[in-house]
Amino acid sequence: MTITLQQLDTPAAVIDTARMERNIARMQQRMNALGVRFRPHVKTAKCIEVARAQLAAGATGITVSTLKEAEQFFQAGIGDILYAVTIDPAKLPRALALIRKGCALTLVVDNPAAATALADFGRAHDCVFAVLIEVDTDGHRSGIGPEEEVLLEVAGILQRGGARVAGVMTHAGSSYELNTQEALAALAEQERAGCVRAAQRIRAAGIACDIVSVGSTPTALAAAALDGVTEVRAGVYVFFDLVMHNVGVCAPEDIALSVLATVIGHQPEKGWAILDAGWMAMSRDRGTAKQSHDFGYGLPCTIDGRPLTGYVLSGANQEHGILSAVHPEAVNQGEHIVTRFPIGARLRILPNHACATGAQYPQYLALSPDGALTRWERFHGW
Amino acid sequence: MTITLQQLDTPAAVIDTARMERNIARMQQRMNALGVRFRPHVKTAKCIEVARAQLAAGATGITVSTLKEAEQFFQAGIGDILYAVTIDPAKLPRALALIRKGCALTLVVDNPAAATALADFGRAHDCVFAVLIEVDTDGHRSGIGPEEEVLLEVAGILQRGGARVAGVMTHAGSSYELNTQEALAALAEQERAGCVRAAQRIRAAGIACDIVSVGSTPTALAAAALDGVTEVRAGVYVFFDLVMHNVGVCAPEDIALSVLATVIGHQPEKGWAILDAGWMAMSRDRGTAKQSHDFGYGLPCTIDGRPLTGYVLSGANQEHGILSAVHPEAVNQGEHIVTRFPIGARLRILPNHACATGAQYPQYLALSPDGALTRWERFHGW
Repeated sequence: MTITLQQLDTPAAVIDTARMERNIARMQQRMNALGVRFRPHVKTAKCIEVARAQLAAGATGITVSTLKEAEQFFQAGIGDILYAVTIDPAKLPRALALIRKGCALTLVVDNPAAATALADFGRAHDCVFAVLIEVDTDGHRSGIGPEEEVLLEVAGILQRGGARVAGVMTHAGSSYELNTQEALAALAEQERAGCVRAAQRIRAAGIACDIVSVGSTPTALAAAALDGVTEVRAGVYVFFDLVMHNVGVCAPEDIALSVLATVIGHQPEKGWAILDAGWMAMSRDRGTAKQSHDFGYGLPCTIDGRPLTGYVLSGANQEHGILSAVHPEAVNQGEHIVTRFPIGARLRILPNHACATGAQYPQYLALSPDGALTRWERFHGW
Repeated sequence: MTITLQQLDTPAAVIDTARMERNIARMQQRMNALGVRFRPHVKTAKCIEVARAQLAAGATGITVSTLKEAEQFFQAGIGDILYAVTIDPAKLPRALALIRKGCALTLVVDNPAAATALADFGRAHDCVFAVLIEVDTDGHRSGIGPEEEVLLEVAGILQRGGARVAGVMTHAGSSYELNTQEALAALAEQERAGCVRAAQRIRAAGIACDIVSVGSTPTALAAAALDGVTEVRAGVYVFFDLVMHNVGVCAPEDIALSVLATVIGHQPEKGWAILDAGWMAMSRDRGTAKQSHDFGYGLPCTIDGRPLTGYVLSGANQEHGILSAVHPEAVNQGEHIVTRFPIGARLRILPNHACATGAQYPQYLALSPDGALTRWERFHGW
């Protein structure tokens, strides 16, 4: 029996597969044109079917944010995995177990203590870990500055056995705070130049440094050239979201993830329709709050995906969402909201942040252009 | 083999069972003294073991926020369940299936359309649904005002067969915005009086209205008297959190849920230690941002649970948390953060909002006073 969007239990996380495939093709074509490998960050979807679509389009391996993702994707047959968070030395036994099973797992460090623990553990277990040194190119999080002395110290520690410098990686996450093509292109160049410079310094010290890995969705889509870069990583582009729309790299019509919700009540004098999708369904992510357009907890769309730009998910309790007009004075309040959104009406809400919203669900419903729905499982936890 | 907090994979959601039992006893003793039944809202923990501890202390049935919780808790042997969200008519078949299996499931409506659909469905399936009418006593979300005409309209619809008015319920969720005992006690009285008034109006119309159900954690702990109330509901009190601390109903030392995290890096010149607990581990909930004390993404504690009040989880990416000093000028930055929080050091982070943080985990680790850890599963999804 096939079910339809009208029959699904709500709330539900729906993937528009045509939009997803379009987003995947757009990014892969860009990477092909720039002459770099593409290693999608699968932390956004944590879903085998999504990763397979990315690989089928031409991606070379995947990037993960947890060892659980690495274990699950390896079990599903994906063997080339970058774990892109500086490794906690206590997690090395889990990493080693994956490598022993045949996984081509690459690790990341950004400090001498972790590098020493990793190399020591590798030597003690007769393993040579492939390691990227994380480079800080925009000051937003982790990594070693391209000109810092400790960069060569870490490279030297890794080369003493038990590990090897496979390359360098960086993530210009501050790109999420920008919103012009010029600023994004400039940050993409800064990300590229800083990471390439770090690789050059390591090579100049006589240590091989093959991989130069950069990326975030906005910089990947804005980069004019990627000389010296060997691979790019990006995650959220696969679904896009309202934060990315405000950054300027997608239209609402590109957003492939939405939350199907049902109207369960009203407060007519306040102009509210109450939905069965609150923050548990949307996540607590308010990433658009400080951007040019605040979308509250999400942008409502019709059940067939057309944005209702005059409305917003303006509030959220755990299982209640509050839908209201963006400009209440411009629409007839009171009965209007009741007749416009009657009890039982179904909507699809575009999320602020696809990575956070997806994490609220044990599964997605993949919606094909022909209306067919397929359950895709999603990983949860660590 | 017993594992310790030093050996757990991080991040992990740890429940201090002594604190939890103390919180449970405190609330139950209050309810006993006030002469009302207590029906805990299990949406906070979504965990069988936690609900069993609440029932063992004297609770009468449970409150749930989703039908999945109802199904899971009923399967675990808990048969008296209030589903405290206005029912979406499309969910009635799932509710009926539970009742057919023997669950004493009570539903909620707050509008004529849902009441009509519910009564029609009940008659069509030879079932008499027990229903509470939701009353709005503080304007924060759903419900019918105690004096509104539609209250009696809904009661009348329910009494035409297929359903019956079991009572009224309200939730003064705006209590989360208060922070003095006086204001909380006043809101508790407003919540009580409004709900009792609605019951009186229904009874005056010749319709039985046995249950008068009120509650939120802050009002439950602040109410001076509950005349006319038959039961109280509260959820987050079982763990408490930093939002409740700011409201003024618990101390940090009462908070039973924490996230165990490991230091994985530093940015010494910024005064940052990087943890492996980002927003995926803490949730995106920033509930303390608009309160008297902004705890960022959480309050760090030592591994044995002592708050490090000079520090805060000041930022979070998906799998990276940024720990920094509250007053950087007051501590020696630079090397200080590295020696104070070395690579591999373990901390426990108290969350802003226990309901949101818990939802990020498939399981809890229950920590007994003797240091033993037990896995407790948690429900996920709808």
